[in-house]
Amino acid sequence: MFEAFTLSFRKDISLVELPQNKEIILQSSTRKLAFSQPASGLQTALKTLYDTGGTATELKQLVQQADGIYGMLKFHSYLQKFISLGWVCHSVLPFATAVPQVWEYEFSAPVVDCQEQFFTLSRFAYLHQVEGQMVLESPLSKAKVILPDWRGVAIVAKLSQPQSCSTLVSEIPSITLEIVQQFLSLLLATQMLSQETYKEVENATLAQWDFHDLLFHTRSRQGRHTNPTGSTYRFLGKIEPQPVVKPPMSKTVIQLYQPNLERLKTADIPLTQVLEERRSIRNYHSCPIAAQQLGEFLYRSARVKNLINREYSNRPYPAGGGLYELEVYPVINTCVGISSGLYHYNPIAHQLEQLCERTKDVEALLKDAWGASGQQDMPQVLIVISARFQRLSWKYEAIAYSLILKHIGVLYQTMYLVATAMNLAPCALGSGNADLFATAAGTDYYAESSVGEFMLGSQSTDENKPEASG
Amino acid sequence: MFEAFTLSFRKDISLVELPQNKEIILQSSTRKLAFSQPASGLQTALKTLYDTGGTATELKQLVQQADGIYGMLKFHSYLQKFISLGWVCHSVLPFATAVPQVWEYEFSAPVVDCQEQFFTLSRFAYLHQVEGQMVLESPLSKAKVILPDWRGVAIVAKLSQPQSCSTLVSEIPSITLEIVQQFLSLLLATQMLSQETYKEVENATLAQWDFHDLLFHTRSRQGRHTNPTGSTYRFLGKIEPQPVVKPPMSKTVIQLYQPNLERLKTADIPLTQVLEERRSIRNYHSCPIAAQQLGEFLYRSARVKNLINREYSNRPYPAGGGLYELEVYPVINTCVGISSGLYHYNPIAHQLEQLCERTKDVEALLKDAWGASGQQDMPQVLIVISARFQRLSWKYEAIAYSLILKHIGVLYQTMYLVATAMNLAPCALGSGNADLFATAAGTDYYAESSVGEFMLGSQSTDENKPEASG
Repeated sequence: MFEAFTLSFRKDISLVELPQNKEIILQSSTRKLAFSQPASGLQTALKTLYDTGGTATELKQLVQQADGIYGMLKFHSYLQKFISLGWVCHSVLPFATAVPQVWEYEFSAPVVDCQEQFFTLSRFAYLHQVEGQMVLESPLSKAKVILPDWRGVAIVAKLSQPQSCSTLVSEIPSITLEIVQQFLSLLLATQMLSQETYKEVENATLAQWDFHDLLFHTRSRQGRHTNPTGSTYRFLGKIEPQPVVKPPMSKTVIQLYQPNLERLKTADIPLTQVLEERRSIRNYHSCPIAAQQLGEFLYRSARVKNLINREYSNRPYPAGGGLYELEVYPVINTCVGISSGLYHYNPIAHQLEQLCERTKDVEALLKDAWGASGQQDMPQVLIVISARFQRLSWKYEAIAYSLILKHIGVLYQTMYLVATAMNLAPCALGSGNADLFATAAGTDYYAESSVGEFMLGSQSTDENKPEASG
Repeated sequence: MFEAFTLSFRKDISLVELPQNKEIILQSSTRKLAFSQPASGLQTALKTLYDTGGTATELKQLVQQADGIYGMLKFHSYLQKFISLGWVCHSVLPFATAVPQVWEYEFSAPVVDCQEQFFTLSRFAYLHQVEGQMVLESPLSKAKVILPDWRGVAIVAKLSQPQSCSTLVSEIPSITLEIVQQFLSLLLATQMLSQETYKEVENATLAQWDFHDLLFHTRSRQGRHTNPTGSTYRFLGKIEPQPVVKPPMSKTVIQLYQPNLERLKTADIPLTQVLEERRSIRNYHSCPIAAQQLGEFLYRSARVKNLINREYSNRPYPAGGGLYELEVYPVINTCVGISSGLYHYNPIAHQLEQLCERTKDVEALLKDAWGASGQQDMPQVLIVISARFQRLSWKYEAIAYSLILKHIGVLYQTMYLVATAMNLAPCALGSGNADLFATAAGTDYYAESSVGEFMLGSQSTDENKPEASG
């Protein structure tokens, strides 16, 4: 029965006929197959795959009638080749079409027992609207399934609870046992179903994946999707890119101390000593960090070194494309010379711009950090790092947010090393509240919200030997 | 008409009656409200909210009949309070229930014009199965919508194309105009719909968000969900954690050169000089990097410094919880003293374990890196960094993958600085193919696949001044 799927070429496979050369050329974005002087049955079959599609049985009959048994066998091996290249969609018309997302594809559809077998929708499968169509995707799948008819989606909905063909066939209008059987077979072939109950007895590896983590891994890395990836500049000429440096956020500014870099280049502690001694410290000296130290720390780790043609800058840490989307917001709890409150670091003027005093939201940011760091000392300075997201996503597609988090990491290590060299107490944090930050700083959550947190303070005198600590 | 939603408490709000004190206590995970000697109408209304639910009109009538108009007004203000605390679900029974995901909630449902207004499902909304229920979520929403009946999901499916109440009412059995109107109002109140066509004329900020990026940002950061977050140890006692150091992958090993760290601690270049001179270099000297340099580089940036009680280790870069899930795989193109192929770095034995020679997949990894770095020189050594995912997700919930990418960043900067101090040519890359890596290295994609790439080579002699370069 599983000759019953309708086969057709993916929409991005082109078919060109060259009448003079009597040639048919099939082409994907990465590959070209040319058929010289194809027999008439083969010609028709290729055009049918390109056009309306047909079942394997129909296509083979058609070729055999025109080209004989040998022609049919040849077509059969072509068809296997097309499928393995990821060129062929499998459909249960008009309810579902599985579209391959990789160039090395397999489609193995099991026969479904109508009474005995129960299936549930995998917890990794998700349905969403893409350009006017409902599409079922999963990070476990190398295909996506387009569901053009609401009844197909209704079947998927019922599969949130264990279902057999027989239980699925009731209620939804115009759905027959045969359709359900084929539909389930297609969802099985594309890894959208679990054969267990919804408590999904997964293997230990999959059980430990959060849905959003695995989805993000598969979509921000290459391998199992054909979405555009990398520096595609898709908004060029449509939307203005974000400025290289964020415009000042406040007129209340504090000019910061600037260290003598030339002296530090020769007199600073050797890299290896700093790297080997770096560790996270969450306890502070009772005498807080001073404004001069904070100034030196920010200058050495996060200032703009120079601007390049109004689009790019150089800073002490690396950044994809030189775009530098991260913004640094010191939340001052106690600092000698700077009053408690929320500030934005202007990396070009080397100033702190005061956004607010110690409000309820500022308190909450400090308390969250204290909680996330194991409730030891309250940070003297909490450095919240936000991203101006569109600064990156204007240029980069699919990988923008993953780049941002890698940038958070390089900035963390830069801050760790500078703090260690300065004998300050550094500690990066693993999570924070992006909505709370946006409210506290008055930013648009979708334009700029927090992605990282780093605590800083003066080092306690009894902290002198490295210990076990991330 | 928008008194027509059925109101009920979230499932995690508890109601306790203390008969002696004549008190009713309502409690969420973060907040408690006590009602002393509540009037009988208020009592019944609270219990109804806790139990079956009712419309605001029904509840108010019930209170007014028992407690009078003053009691009803008091109840009204309580109800507003419950809603703003995120304690109250709004339902269109039996089709949809909006469950608040924040503790500062607003539910503002517009009246829907049945003929004139057209709506489409937002491209950020997604439907998936969560513990046996179909749930509609969106990174734009502060609620999730549970759809217990397949007909509710069918309405959502039809909304992949612009729909009015009138067009929605046809086809799906038992769906009336009144239900559709309420259903759309609920989806609008929870930011699941766009009022535009499916080409969604979004504001420029939202237009630049990829679906998976925004989904990941909202779910890996706190603020608009109530999912467990942080070190929850949810698999403790159920699944064995991954070992602190990955067991050897091959018996063909190369012992690496180990630098004199004590000498480097005093003789190495000052941190500031290294930080200020660090830059990405993508061109190499014709004489390739040597095995001794690679050994020194790996020792200084990625070795295990010491093991702590079989669970944690110390390495030169920081890592959340001291778990160190990252694995380093040098792909050797040209290196004096090491033949071309794929290797795994054993960070405790300080050895390279050879996995394979220069296979087709190894070639493809090198070629991908060359493409991602702007097609300058082919990397002499490509360092692919993978993650043993479950090493982190065993302990951390919601934030595991975001931690991994931050760790990639701290390792990148560590490698950049060590390479700069050693006068090597470093360059981190922004993306790579995780499936290809898993195939090449023979790992299970879901247990361990690549998350970062870093190129390394000998520095060309004409490269001596820093320039514009991420």
